[in-house]
Amino acid sequence: MKLTIVKVGGKIVEDESTLQQLLGDFSSIDGPKVLIHGGGRSATKIAASLGIESVMIGGRRVTDEKMLNVVTMVYGGLVNKNIVARLQACGINALGLTGADMNVMRSHKRAPKLITMDDGAQQMVDFGYVGDVDACDGQMLASLIDKGIVPVMAPLTHDGEGHILNTNADTIAGETAKALAPFYDVTLIYSFEHAGVLTDPEDESSVIAHINEQSFEQLKADGTVNGGMIPKIENALDAIRKGVSRVIITKADAIDGKHGTIIS
Amino acid sequence: MKLTIVKVGGKIVEDESTLQQLLGDFSSIDGPKVLIHGGGRSATKIAASLGIESVMIGGRRVTDEKMLNVVTMVYGGLVNKNIVARLQACGINALGLTGADMNVMRSHKRAPKLITMDDGAQQMVDFGYVGDVDACDGQMLASLIDKGIVPVMAPLTHDGEGHILNTNADTIAGETAKALAPFYDVTLIYSFEHAGVLTDPEDESSVIAHINEQSFEQLKADGTVNGGMIPKIENALDAIRKGVSRVIITKADAIDGKHGTIIS
Repeated sequence: MKLTIVKVGGKIVEDESTLQQLLGDFSSIDGPKVLIHGGGRSATKIAASLGIESVMIGGRRVTDEKMLNVVTMVYGGLVNKNIVARLQACGINALGLTGADMNVMRSHKRAPKLITMDDGAQQMVDFGYVGDVDACDGQMLASLIDKGIVPVMAPLTHDGEGHILNTNADTIAGETAKALAPFYDVTLIYSFEHAGVLTDPEDESSVIAHINEQSFEQLKADGTVNGGMIPKIENALDAIRKGVSRVIITKADAIDGKHGTIIS
Repeated sequence: MKLTIVKVGGKIVEDESTLQQLLGDFSSIDGPKVLIHGGGRSATKIAASLGIESVMIGGRRVTDEKMLNVVTMVYGGLVNKNIVARLQACGINALGLTGADMNVMRSHKRAPKLITMDDGAQQMVDFGYVGDVDACDGQMLASLIDKGIVPVMAPLTHDGEGHILNTNADTIAGETAKALAPFYDVTLIYSFEHAGVLTDPEDESSVIAHINEQSFEQLKADGTVNGGMIPKIENALDAIRKGVSRVIITKADAIDGKHGTIIS
């Protein structure tokens, strides 16, 4: 059976008009599905209102104890429960989950890591309460999905020792897709700000229709694909190697599986 | 099969030492169980940090749009997910739920209501985004419980039209107990600040061991039970009439079913 997993960033779910369109588009996807959402902008905004400064290093949030409380509130509560209530109104039997719920996604706290900064210098960074995923319970998720339930996953995991950990939503999506691959023909859709992987970053019509292991090597070698797209595609190819049928990189308003770059 | 439903107030789950004891006590309860929690103090505190004033009328929170966002964050995110992660660490397969999740508890927004104020005057009060419960899906909850899952319910419901609504945790507990009564031999434990229903409010050892319909009439008539205890016991007796086996009113550190006042 086909299963569609859609990951949307915080920007989409935090703006009323784009959220409304997304929920409509997501509801229209045939068959079983899973939604994974971000929420970083809301977290930053609410943290600021609470007098807590957001520290980002290399595009990743540093999560101290106060920030952990904020992301737990915002991702697990505000953003997640509003999406769930809105999907219920669309006739979708949504269930909001963090990794702690039913032990769905277990992680461990990331050790301090050597990070290459924008200026090329290297620095040891402690990202704080950030979780690197160890295990996703695909069987538990599949048993829910088979009952017609649509999991809506917040970017939070737990360490099994009583701590919630902040985890990148792209990672949650990839791990969920891999864990569900033994049970379904999985399409994983990563929505982002462009129409797909572009040959010309200035031209939204220059979408590369299809990438596989071989063509990716070529695209890297000739410099067509570079920068932040390289790890994105590497993650997608890793998902394919672990049984996911296809990964689609597309714009948030085109999650019907017919647009964007297909990686398989 | 026996099922124990425990309701704890915000005060218990918001203090680290009492929370730790509660989670230990709750984990020790044999057999299937459900936890329902409040969180009002945290909501008030975080609302204040965000510059949002908490308005209480007759002990009930007025929930405007900003306050709805706060309770959604705090009850559904911060408090709920921390309890879930902590229970997982105790080996309990907890699942955090609001009423929106899997459409477990549907409600409608309360119409403005005539309230008798402390000074005896009557006033029409619009409590805002507050939900009065219409339906609880006992079958869905029972199917989870039968898989070894322990629902942890936040005091939030939804109206089926995309809105989360703030709902009293005692009400959530009562509705859950009634909805699960067809499936289990249900004990509903309401924890509060006293050892039980007392004959002398100054004496914690003056617990009334047992109350039923007949003795309640007597206790009301002679004035032993008065004030806020009357609606609490009326709600308990309503649960008994609707199939709940017993309701226990006890202190939060004595939820083993062997202490407090039994209403049956």
